[in-house]
Amino acid sequence: MIVLGIDPGLSLTGWGVVKAESYDKILPLKYGCIRTQAKVTLLERLHGINKELQEILDFYKPDVVAIEQLFFLKKASSVAFVGQARGAIVLTVAMNKIKLFEYNPRSVKIALTGYGSADKHQMQHMVKTILRLKEIPQPDDAADALAMAVCHIQTKGIK
Amino acid sequence: MIVLGIDPGLSLTGWGVVKAESYDKILPLKYGCIRTQAKVTLLERLHGINKELQEILDFYKPDVVAIEQLFFLKKASSVAFVGQARGAIVLTVAMNKIKLFEYNPRSVKIALTGYGSADKHQMQHMVKTILRLKEIPQPDDAADALAMAVCHIQTKGIK
Repeated sequence: MIVLGIDPGLSLTGWGVVKAESYDKILPLKYGCIRTQAKVTLLERLHGINKELQEILDFYKPDVVAIEQLFFLKKASSVAFVGQARGAIVLTVAMNKIKLFEYNPRSVKIALTGYGSADKHQMQHMVKTILRLKEIPQPDDAADALAMAVCHIQTKGIK
Repeated sequence: MIVLGIDPGLSLTGWGVVKAESYDKILPLKYGCIRTQAKVTLLERLHGINKELQEILDFYKPDVVAIEQLFFLKKASSVAFVGQARGAIVLTVAMNKIKLFEYNPRSVKIALTGYGSADKHQMQHMVKTILRLKEIPQPDDAADALAMAVCHIQTKGIK
């Protein structure tokens, strides 16, 4: 099973593709981030995210996409930016008829570390360990996206 | 010139198509709203908005889309819902290579009534008058969408 994890953002969307052969054998295929420039229009930024995401979907053909839930603790202006990027991402997934699962940050922390209040460093360390990477993935958004993909496999298993 | 005005929302997106023959001769072609059910997934809701909007774009072939700017005075949870719908709408417009213009509520009020603090009733009355409609368009979201289209023409002219 191939899972694409996504950590959405308007300036920077982290992504990570993993292949799960079993519950505890999860291989990283590729990770990175989609960047958009603040100087171009919102329309161009969302279209840019869509096009890069489409290339990732076409190349890796994930069975499932796992994405971070929007949480409302942030201020409204940042929710607005992330929300619009997330809307464009979810629509792109929908148009490709791929299943989408949403996870909140706490669930991801529990899945990876067993502890709902794990800090960023613990999370990144567990992503590195579970995926047998030599280094912690950079940028942080890509590590968060990989964590999302791992969380999906550890929560739902391989179906 | 054909302009599609949009008042975005996750549950209800108002839309209105007008044809401008000159600055002061604006004819309403059609208006209505796209509704999505809260009981289905976000993915299905955004895909539903995309499909209905695509039908409108295919049928009326607008030269321009005018959409309400996201404003951040509302609470974060409602910004999140509107934001995601708006992201899906903007992406749909981008994929159709149609120009998008954004207007804030104050600009729309000034364009239609000459008064930035005009109330909902005044705005609806002006939409009815400018478009020579027999009645105020319903629901309110459709009237707001028509106001957006009229605002675009009165602000940018016919190009």
